Formats: sequence, structure tokens, C-alpha cells
Amino acid sequence: MKVIAVSHGSFSKGLVESVQMLVGQQEDLVAYGLYPEQTVQTLTEQLEEELKKTPEGEEVLFLTDLFHGSPFNAVVSLMRDYKFHHITGINLPIAITILLERSSTDSIEALCRKAEETAAETVLYVNKLFEEKEEEE
Amino acid sequence: MKVIAVSHGSFSKGLVESVQMLVGQQEDLVAYGLYPEQTVQTLTEQLEEELKKTPEGEEVLFLTDLFHGSPFNAVVSLMRDYKFHHITGINLPIAITILLERSSTDSIEALCRKAEETAAETVLYVNKLFEEKEEEE
Repeated sequence: MKVIAVSHGSFSKGLVESVQMLVGQQEDLVAYGLYPEQTVQTLTEQLEEELKKTPEGEEVLFLTDLFHGSPFNAVVSLMRDYKFHHITGINLPIAITILLERSSTDSIEALCRKAEETAAETVLYVNKLFEEKEEEE
Repeated sequence: MKVIAVSHGSFSKGLVESVQMLVGQQEDLVAYGLYPEQTVQTLTEQLEEELKKTPEGEEVLFLTDLFHGSPFNAVVSLMRDYKFHHITGINLPIAITILLERSSTDSIEALCRKAEETAAETVLYVNKLFEEKEEEE
């Protein structure tokens, strides 16, 4: 399974770098950014190239930064002609779960559904959490 | 209100860059990364310096990458001696909401609670979303 992170600017590149600091160097993990000097069309072409060079039968998961953002739209435009999975609003904990579980999961769809369903548990207001813990004690 | 993004590697730097591509250049928004050549102690000292130079009365919100990660722990260690807010598991949509609403919100605590409560809405499995939409039509 290939994972392709796509974002405005260097967010996806930073995500991939930080993920690899935590879980080690990863194969089949790449990042693309949409930069101010670049058009959405150019980004879309780069992503299509990446899809074309993926071996037949290898599944692909796109991770984008923002629902309805331009990188999101570029990926969605490719969903017509290519079959792949797509999660938007990615954060570091979800990216790590996906990379750690991608080789062992029975179904990429189940992994994506789980990522979505457990998203709320990955974003925490730490002060509130500590207050609740203090109240319990 | 000052926002300080902290992460493993360049994730926080990428987040800040990409946010600014979307909502324009921001004041009082900085990023710190923990890099392989650096200790957690050094990072903690840098963050403490940043807190010390924040004008008295200005509120501070830390955004970290990962619950129980080293950057998270560095920020938590400072919660003993300094008063600030802290959200972990940050993604781009939540960062944007915070930056757009930080000047108009009555309460930074309410903004942080809202960020946590609406987190699930920001992470979406796009294929599932489109399937549901098709079923509705």
C-alpha cells in the first residue's frame, strides 16, 4: 500500500519527516505540496504521474490537509479515473496508525474507517484532560 | 494571543507555513521542532524562553503534534510553572479555526473546547462521504 500525503505548502513534507522520526524510514510514503509559484493543474499532473507509476494491484491512500482545499480538490478530480482511498484533515497520530497498520490490515477500507472513527480521540485539549484527571483523584 | 506550534521535526514548521498560505501572514504564531541532533531539554529551554518573552497578560496556546510524544512532554513540563493552554493532535483545519477566531473569541478556553469537540468533523474518509452522498441522491 502506497501512502501519498498532499497539502498546501510544506505541511505534507513535514508530516512525512516527523512520522519517520517516530516510526522509522518508510517505503512507499511520499509527499507533495502545492506551492505559491505552482498551479493546481501542475500538482494534479504530478499526482497522476505518481498513480501511473504505482504497480498494478498496489493500493493507494491519499492523505490531504484540508476538506475543500485545492490539494483536496486535485486528489478528488483524480478519483474519477483512478481507484484509491482518501482521508482528509490528517494529523500525526492518524498518519502513524495508518503507517504502522498498513501492512497487517485485512482491508484498507476498514483502516480508513477506523482512522475516521477514532479521530476525536487523537485531538485533545490537554488542560481539560488534566482537570478531569484531578477531579477523579 | 500567541500560538506556539511544537512537534517532532518539521511538522510544526510546515503547519505554520501552510496555514499562512491559506489565511495570510500571522503575527504571534511561531513553530518549534525537536530534531534528531537535539535533546528534549534544549527544546524545553527554547519554549521557556518563548514564554518568558511573551508580554504579561497575553494568553498563550501551544499546539503539539502527538499525545505523549517528547514535544508534548516538553510542553506539559512547563505547565507546572506557566499558565497557558495546550491542544495536542493538531491538524490544519483546527489550526486555521483557531487562528481565524483567536482575536474575536471571548474565551480561549471556549475556543479550545470547541476545537476538541469538533475534531471528528475535520477528519474525513472521503470515499465513505461520497458513497453516502450518492446514496442520498
